[in-house]
Amino acid sequence: MASRKLDEQQLDDLAVGAAILGTGGGGNPYIGKLRVRELLRQGKDIEIIPLEALGDDDLVVSVGGIGAPVVGIEKLERGDECFQALKAIEQETGKTISALIPAEIGGSNSMEPLITAAQAGIPVVDGDGMGRAFPEIQMMTFFIYGHSPQPAAIADEKGNVVVFRKVQDMYWLERFARTIAVDMGAAAGFADPPMRGDFIKRYAIPETLTQATNLGRCVRLANEENRNPLDAIQTEAGGQLQFRGKITDVRRELKGGFAVGRVKLESLENPNDLAEIDIQNENLILRCNGTVTVSVPDLIIVLNVDSGEPITTEVLRYGMRVAVMAFPCHRLLRTEAALKVVGPKAFGYADVNYQPLAN
Amino acid sequence: MASRKLDEQQLDDLAVGAAILGTGGGGNPYIGKLRVRELLRQGKDIEIIPLEALGDDDLVVSVGGIGAPVVGIEKLERGDECFQALKAIEQETGKTISALIPAEIGGSNSMEPLITAAQAGIPVVDGDGMGRAFPEIQMMTFFIYGHSPQPAAIADEKGNVVVFRKVQDMYWLERFARTIAVDMGAAAGFADPPMRGDFIKRYAIPETLTQATNLGRCVRLANEENRNPLDAIQTEAGGQLQFRGKITDVRRELKGGFAVGRVKLESLENPNDLAEIDIQNENLILRCNGTVTVSVPDLIIVLNVDSGEPITTEVLRYGMRVAVMAFPCHRLLRTEAALKVVGPKAFGYADVNYQPLAN
Repeated sequence: MASRKLDEQQLDDLAVGAAILGTGGGGNPYIGKLRVRELLRQGKDIEIIPLEALGDDDLVVSVGGIGAPVVGIEKLERGDECFQALKAIEQETGKTISALIPAEIGGSNSMEPLITAAQAGIPVVDGDGMGRAFPEIQMMTFFIYGHSPQPAAIADEKGNVVVFRKVQDMYWLERFARTIAVDMGAAAGFADPPMRGDFIKRYAIPETLTQATNLGRCVRLANEENRNPLDAIQTEAGGQLQFRGKITDVRRELKGGFAVGRVKLESLENPNDLAEIDIQNENLILRCNGTVTVSVPDLIIVLNVDSGEPITTEVLRYGMRVAVMAFPCHRLLRTEAALKVVGPKAFGYADVNYQPLAN
Repeated sequence: MASRKLDEQQLDDLAVGAAILGTGGGGNPYIGKLRVRELLRQGKDIEIIPLEALGDDDLVVSVGGIGAPVVGIEKLERGDECFQALKAIEQETGKTISALIPAEIGGSNSMEPLITAAQAGIPVVDGDGMGRAFPEIQMMTFFIYGHSPQPAAIADEKGNVVVFRKVQDMYWLERFARTIAVDMGAAAGFADPPMRGDFIKRYAIPETLTQATNLGRCVRLANEENRNPLDAIQTEAGGQLQFRGKITDVRRELKGGFAVGRVKLESLENPNDLAEIDIQNENLILRCNGTVTVSVPDLIIVLNVDSGEPITTEVLRYGMRVAVMAFPCHRLLRTEAALKVVGPKAFGYADVNYQPLAN
């Protein structure tokens, strides 16, 4: 696959696809999309390169927003938070970064690296560290597969920059970064330690910018051509429909920087069929009539039942008519090492055994 | 005044005097004292130099422990936390630090710079940034009088090091440092941004290592010579006796990294005379029969009524017989600029107007 320059149509599709892959979390990509579009209209080029284009010695940094998606609705970024965090990493290591990679493809963090890439004048790698969205830093494949947790940096819209210079492991990094992010107003820009090209080629979830763009296009074309977008997602993009229902209850609270909650659904087909989705920033567990049918790390996505557009957890409301779609996660998230960090037990579900969704 | 090498007798006296000047907070200097003594016995020299010995261009860093004193009782340091934070500052600025100065003379933070000085092989300046103990970073005279809040660093016993590279003001520094200190287990080593010699000579509270040493010696000699130590503190060290009483109630809780509480006293002379001391790590406000008689930034100190030894807030207990002694604070803490940061209103006492204790 060749390098390509992002255009506005791809950007629109990517934003929709990234919101779908966000599994309800990662924040709404909408504001980030407007920023990227503005940069494109100013004549900035944003180049997306395939994993294979990286040299083994190239240094790549993953950047993204960190905080609570609920906060992101009202607290706008200044727009260069991730860029400032990236500059802090370059200063800290004394090395030049060749490319960026999204920390997570899901939600607004699909947009952050595009903004930072335009500001820094470097390309974005077609892949990411989650293949979806997850709530915590250590849940990136990079850290799961042994990436050093230091140095990392965080920056806010007020000009504060904090560097995590020596960090014992990825859990300490998550703890420090989360607590500073909360101090900074529960929304800040984060840059991870630099990774070598050969490491990225092995442990990034590949081609997820392309996957998200295709997913968004599939929904757009179905709507334009008056086809059923839910069918299109199933036949063209590998989605697996789990449930169609009306939201009967939403419980949600902000807890230590996370949006935690539970959504209840009643089937559109048969009001006796009930479903529940557990949330921690993202959709974690789907239960149908009391039985777990899909669980993290597989993707659980809530879509508008008519338009197929994704609904992030912070805008779920009583009465919405939604479809619950599932996607199998990438094999890098299904290893024993990965499940320790991103499986149901890592999220506190001691009694849920991960049953992989069929591919 | 000449430079001097610290000896064990001075160290013992300093530890007692520093605990007195700690106004109930700053942590117990005992464990720190044992560490310093061990370093002296290993043959390390610890040189204490007067403010005048500093060149105008010399760079000085204040170091100290940050956290909750209650935690310090059970969570021992590794011993090089402040040294690691100092090294992070040297790395960050690319400059060599010529001397250390205590962030606060009060409590365990009188000992931290001595330990770090022995480890780094540099002298300690005879002075500090508080002339007592205070609970927050911005309460140092250095910050009150315009010292830059960046870069600063914090280190823990596990080897984690976090650098506050860009910080908008001293309140942000306090917020970030406090929250990371809590993450680190409510006890960590902190190093402030480097200060120039000419700045230190103007804004440090001068000769407080000497003051603390003299105060400790005064108590020791009174006890050795069977004189009343409370009288000695009054006649020889400028203390002003406020109340002698029995503790009838202690309320204390750990709140966001602080020990907050209130102590009630009943007079030894007349059980109808009551007093109350409000605490936030340190003794803040003394009320006698409902009227504020001494308030922060003047020093309020609780002493064993017989031995004259200071009692830190975390070991106050029902039934203890104590004397409450007051000392006037230094004039650098009584300016309008200082009272905004360390006066009663800065601690949430909107209705308490600071009435300076007579000198």
